[in-house]
Amino acid sequence: MDLFDPEQHSHRRRNALTGQWVLVSPHRARRPWQGRQEAVSAPALPAHDPGCYLCAGNTRVSGQRNPDYRGPWVFDNDHPALQAEVPGLADASCAADGPGPAAAGDAPAASTRAANSPAAPAAASAAALFQAAPARGTARVICYSPDHGRGLPQLSVDEITAVVDTWCTQSTELGRQHAWVQVFENKGELMGCSQPHPHGQIWATGHLPDAARDEDREQRAWAARHGRPLLADLAAAELADGRRVVLRTDDWLAIVPWWATWPFETLLLPLRPARRLEDLTPAQRRDLALALQRLTALYDRLFDCPFPYSMGWHGAPHARPDEPALDETARAAADAAWTVHAHFYPPLLRSATVRKFMVGYEMLAEPQRDLTPEQAAERLRALLPPT
Amino acid sequence: MDLFDPEQHSHRRRNALTGQWVLVSPHRARRPWQGRQEAVSAPALPAHDPGCYLCAGNTRVSGQRNPDYRGPWVFDNDHPALQAEVPGLADASCAADGPGPAAAGDAPAASTRAANSPAAPAAASAAALFQAAPARGTARVICYSPDHGRGLPQLSVDEITAVVDTWCTQSTELGRQHAWVQVFENKGELMGCSQPHPHGQIWATGHLPDAARDEDREQRAWAARHGRPLLADLAAAELADGRRVVLRTDDWLAIVPWWATWPFETLLLPLRPARRLEDLTPAQRRDLALALQRLTALYDRLFDCPFPYSMGWHGAPHARPDEPALDETARAAADAAWTVHAHFYPPLLRSATVRKFMVGYEMLAEPQRDLTPEQAAERLRALLPPT
Ligand SMILES: O=P(O)(O)O[C@H]1O[C@H](CO)[C@@H](O)[C@H](O)[C@H]1O
Ligand SMILES: O=P(O)(O)O[C@H]1O[C@H](CO)[C@@H](O)[C@H](O)[C@H]1O
Repeated sequence: MDLFDPEQHSHRRRNALTGQWVLVSPHRARRPWQGRQEAVSAPALPAHDPGCYLCAGNTRVSGQRNPDYRGPWVFDNDHPALQAEVPGLADASCAADGPGPAAAGDAPAASTRAANSPAAPAAASAAALFQAAPARGTARVICYSPDHGRGLPQLSVDEITAVVDTWCTQSTELGRQHAWVQVFENKGELMGCSQPHPHGQIWATGHLPDAARDEDREQRAWAARHGRPLLADLAAAELADGRRVVLRTDDWLAIVPWWATWPFETLLLPLRPARRLEDLTPAQRRDLALALQRLTALYDRLFDCPFPYSMGWHGAPHARPDEPALDETARAAADAAWTVHAHFYPPLLRSATVRKFMVGYEMLAEPQRDLTPEQAAERLRALLPPT
Repeated sequence: MDLFDPEQHSHRRRNALTGQWVLVSPHRARRPWQGRQEAVSAPALPAHDPGCYLCAGNTRVSGQRNPDYRGPWVFDNDHPALQAEVPGLADASCAADGPGPAAAGDAPAASTRAANSPAAPAAASAAALFQAAPARGTARVICYSPDHGRGLPQLSVDEITAVVDTWCTQSTELGRQHAWVQVFENKGELMGCSQPHPHGQIWATGHLPDAARDEDREQRAWAARHGRPLLADLAAAELADGRRVVLRTDDWLAIVPWWATWPFETLLLPLRPARRLEDLTPAQRRDLALALQRLTALYDRLFDCPFPYSMGWHGAPHARPDEPALDETARAAADAAWTVHAHFYPPLLRSATVRKFMVGYEMLAEPQRDLTPEQAAERLRALLPPT
């Protein structure tokens, strides 16, 4: 048999940030595609759209009138997925039969109504089957600028710096009351974005979502073992290797990570330590704006279309409500294991109209990709403007 | 404050099969939708399409001619994501610097080329950052019948029984050489199905994919603690409760699980013990065909369209290569914790043209749903034909 060749042979790669695996099938990009073609919608948009409920001065569905904002503008989502006030489950009528929090699981949890037929298992097991916990939080929208027609790839570095500053302020402010502040953007209809006006969202919760817990666990385990933050080691290793590097600026590095699941997924890392958005210095913020402008413009060039993606930020949790026993020292060590970073998850695979579907096998077994991260990084690098 | 009400308040629910959580925002289904509308493609299809590469007697892209098959027909995927022959990574030139399998992680893993710049972390940490493992397996296609125009909701119970029998035979056969046999179907363009001829797929691997490992862990932990299989307890509790039941036949129960992430997700469970597809008796198989026919027809009625979904089967692993130390008794106990079951993951949310997007928050934090599983089950039940 031949020697193993990651460009030829099916293999799995482990995500060091989450502990999950991805199946890589490098030979599969050659298969013909007869399936769905997406529509490319790239009309030039006006700077102001009187029908847009995010543009300055317009009235939203809720009846509220937007201010005449000039830079980034943040407001509470009119249809938030999270509520600030949620009663505890222990009081709930639907949990009347449960003696209190169910014992299994590792988050504050309570049972709902135990089944009351003699055929049903004991109430204790019903409590463990039907675990729930209140989810308290806030959902906000952030308009990047009053300009309806220009998003991150088109905004100036100054304008993007203002967006970065707003992310940092929001993280600080919401972090006072919430364990996790999730800053994200869905871009493009393909990613469920129901509004073309360039904007992102911020959902903050009293609990750590599963993805936050995975990254917290893996980064803390790495630091405990290697004595350095995982993503600092990764940035150094990727810079030295070079094969997965997409671009770098003075302070930031964009790579297609070793474990990328989406075809052109990237991970954006600071080159100097920072645990959370609010730790970034003014210089790091401005340089981040430059990196964001370059990366999103590069994406747009790949298939010559406004490149859809979901992106978002992960940083050290503001609290760890599931670990009340953590003392100050342990908390500081846990935080020190973190490096703030952004994930970009873009769905396109072959062209502006052919996406990757994460369906059957991916939903039931594990994610699968059709080209190697090294091939994806090479294609992106080839589109960099000459410097 | 009011009492907690799962129909009013945002909360999280724990998936007892995987240990993951889902955010439930019951109040959010009321928000207006201005985003993407999917096309409904529901042309009546002929029983035979001369241009279809899955129809009997036609020639595939590979140049091979399909037999004149009459019932279900299985063949090797012309563009498999998995290869049977993959050399070990220890031999690989790209792993030349690595001393062997990386120590971290819990699957057979080897490092690839360690970075060789002085700026890079030690080879040991590069080995842990870049973990890979060969993925050996088989990918097959299963045409449900020669009829190009009839899928599970339209096939007769006899015809579907033949599909079930084929799943069982494939699971037995591939299970001899593989740890995990993933039977699945992607239905509809929305789920990346590139071929309208009703068919499913079977991907078998030497390793346990992440989802299999999660369900193995949780079911074994449940059985160790409660002395019964998790899904037997669940079926009894759901039958007694009734709120999440969609339909039942003599031998099968379909529920919208407590922890459903997709709006109309269902879990199909046997009412008598069976660990794997091949354990099903002839009576259970025939009754399963009836349950599949009813469930898929019910789905089609929900939004009056061919309802897209990904579905697939999970059963006790055929081997646990990561646990070589398991003896015969421990293996038998681990297998006895399992109940074979099917998951249906359909993307539609509001209508034939408006889907749920699992994007930004879902990709970066955790899945979120906009109506409760109880509401979804009630809507599906209301469409059951009178009996
Ligand atoms: O094999 P198919 O049907 O061409 O491909 C489809 O199913 C596969 C398995 O779920 C996915 O990996 C592909 O992204 C999807 O397009
Ligand atoms: O809030 P939006 O943009 O209307 O909604 C979009 O993003 C949310 C957060 O990722 C998702 O839950 C929705 O499914 C998606 O349509």
